[in-house]
Amino acid sequence: MELSQRITNITGGGSDGWDVFYKARRMIAEGTDVIELTIGEHDIRTDPIILSAMDISARGGHTGYAMVPGTQELREAVATRLAERTGVPTTYENILITPGGQSALFAAHLATCSPGTRALFIDPYYATYPGTIRSVGAEPVAIATHAENAFKPRAEDITSEAIKGASSLLVNTPNNPTGTIYERDTLQAIAQVCQEQDLWLISDEVYDTQVWEGAHLSPRALPGMAERTLVIGSMSKSHAMTGSRIGWIAAPKEVITHLINLATHTTYGVPGYIQDAAVFALAQGNPLEEEVAAPFRRRRKLASDILAAQSTVGLIPAQGAMYIMLDVRATGLSGEEFANSLLDTHHIATMPGESFGTSAHGHVRVAMTVADERFKQALQTLVDHAEVLASHKAS
Amino acid sequence: MELSQRITNITGGGSDGWDVFYKARRMIAEGTDVIELTIGEHDIRTDPIILSAMDISARGGHTGYAMVPGTQELREAVATRLAERTGVPTTYENILITPGGQSALFAAHLATCSPGTRALFIDPYYATYPGTIRSVGAEPVAIATHAENAFKPRAEDITSEAIKGASSLLVNTPNNPTGTIYERDTLQAIAQVCQEQDLWLISDEVYDTQVWEGAHLSPRALPGMAERTLVIGSMSKSHAMTGSRIGWIAAPKEVITHLINLATHTTYGVPGYIQDAAVFALAQGNPLEEEVAAPFRRRRKLASDILAAQSTVGLIPAQGAMYIMLDVRATGLSGEEFANSLLDTHHIATMPGESFGTSAHGHVRVAMTVADERFKQALQTLVDHAEVLASHKAS
Repeated sequence: MELSQRITNITGGGSDGWDVFYKARRMIAEGTDVIELTIGEHDIRTDPIILSAMDISARGGHTGYAMVPGTQELREAVATRLAERTGVPTTYENILITPGGQSALFAAHLATCSPGTRALFIDPYYATYPGTIRSVGAEPVAIATHAENAFKPRAEDITSEAIKGASSLLVNTPNNPTGTIYERDTLQAIAQVCQEQDLWLISDEVYDTQVWEGAHLSPRALPGMAERTLVIGSMSKSHAMTGSRIGWIAAPKEVITHLINLATHTTYGVPGYIQDAAVFALAQGNPLEEEVAAPFRRRRKLASDILAAQSTVGLIPAQGAMYIMLDVRATGLSGEEFANSLLDTHHIATMPGESFGTSAHGHVRVAMTVADERFKQALQTLVDHAEVLASHKAS
Repeated sequence: MELSQRITNITGGGSDGWDVFYKARRMIAEGTDVIELTIGEHDIRTDPIILSAMDISARGGHTGYAMVPGTQELREAVATRLAERTGVPTTYENILITPGGQSALFAAHLATCSPGTRALFIDPYYATYPGTIRSVGAEPVAIATHAENAFKPRAEDITSEAIKGASSLLVNTPNNPTGTIYERDTLQAIAQVCQEQDLWLISDEVYDTQVWEGAHLSPRALPGMAERTLVIGSMSKSHAMTGSRIGWIAAPKEVITHLINLATHTTYGVPGYIQDAAVFALAQGNPLEEEVAAPFRRRRKLASDILAAQSTVGLIPAQGAMYIMLDVRATGLSGEEFANSLLDTHHIATMPGESFGTSAHGHVRVAMTVADERFKQALQTLVDHAEVLASHKAS
């Protein structure tokens, strides 16, 4: 009577690099006033107009089983949104509604990766990626990238060694944790690898409304890619609906047909009243999405100004998403050491780059998720702290 | 670029025995007044007092990420409920909150069955069982039971041939589709097999509040079974919250620890406002649960009276759950033929026993999910129809 290795091995053993995060949580629990810049959660709540739509739907009787693939209305609303934003013809038959983006990531990997095959993803990466791949019985293979390229993968980074036996490649743009956006040339290189190596592309686009520079481009829109791309979407970041667990997969119709079978046996659908709330939220269009994104846009500007005034801490080009990735190598410390030092000395919690793989060592990720003044103050303190450390190192 | 066999093979190929169900749906869509006795969905909606609790929670700000294992309050409420009802010491550390019972069934099998192992379940069975097992890459093995034993498994039904290479056994009491409840001797035989063969027991108890005769006994309460039993629970049937997708797994603490890791990588938790609504609903205690169960209790009595007045249609002892299983073998028809004939002639939709495996051939399952008068009329028509068919057969 043993548990499946798939589940006992999800974390892959060893430290998960989240020690600083847990230390900050303990300090907060013990009453310390910690400035929390760790997690990608808005400092606002879901807009009451969305909650009203949910309440009206629930009281209207939408409390029974909803259609497993999602309601017709929401599938169509998502399809229309994707078609408008990417130019790729998309109908409700290309859409499965899921209880959140994580659930979509899991289902996409379960669908595309048989046990024992390899699943590729770009390092640095969102924390759940390797465990998601392990939980479907596949082998996670990280593709290292480099700070000098703003952590964007080049074709040569995806080596033939890594690709051997691989079923899928997972990319994320706008990117968490780096805050970069993959431009057309990066995406074209990725598309070419997928086509040459016959890989599924899983494209995590949950930050597609948080674009500060340039434009979000979905790799599904590149020639020949719609047939092999599964796009992961979510209302979490775009509409501050993290807790509502509502997302989707956009994929070829045949893939969705199988994913619906999977949903019947894993989730049995998503609450109808949450789907109705999502339809309402999407119907508000850009103005609501821009309102939700605005605080991050402001704080990203605040951060850029503070960082431009010094040269100790480097800023990875902050093009999108609710994070900035800072290069603290001038301090001589690892990201983890720096984050620990900043937390201990100034009660500011950031995520070490090492929490997201090995590529972003010597970096820290800052979530722009506290009020502007507090954020500004925290970032100035971070910079000052780095300068002190760097000068000690120099002396 | 192929999809994983786990997902392309979920339905196991061939007919799923749901043709009558889909035919009824088509007839309804085309405007025919069909009496729907197919699906286990209440004819009431979620109580507005529960929806108010949900709205208050959401507007109170519980719209961000909830704790992945479930809120402390709900985990404790579920633990207390199980401890009180079963006598098994249970704390929040034994509980994982899941987005519904189906999600719990999937996670329990993913945790206990490695790819290629076998997972046992009792035939007749709830429709998703074999597909759930296939979707985790295990092999579903049905244990046949017999109408003469009210479809309850005996130790000898679980043959050594079936057990070879098996990791788990899935049971369901009160039972869907049969409406029977496993008494102590049946459960003791099951427990003995699990202990002798070192199997995990997955106990689906989502109908535990729908008990018309005798008492619900959880196999987790039998000596030595708490350490190897994963109980599947849900608010769907007990509180008419099917659409809210809220359930749980109760299991040994170490198993829950791993299941929390899995949840981080599959669902990332359950909406906090739904969990708060569930806490509120559970706090209402028995009166609310009895109110939700009352219509089925009444209709089961109506059905028993009608069936007692004739001898063509047999009734499998209807001890619990929202279904009755009827033996129509006296008509000379299979369950599917009878259900088709009843639907075509009288526009009454029931589920053929064959929809639930091979053991319940020559039976139909009737969901007691329409208003009393309509239910009574439908059941009388069903009996009359069976009598006509039986007399034709005899002549």
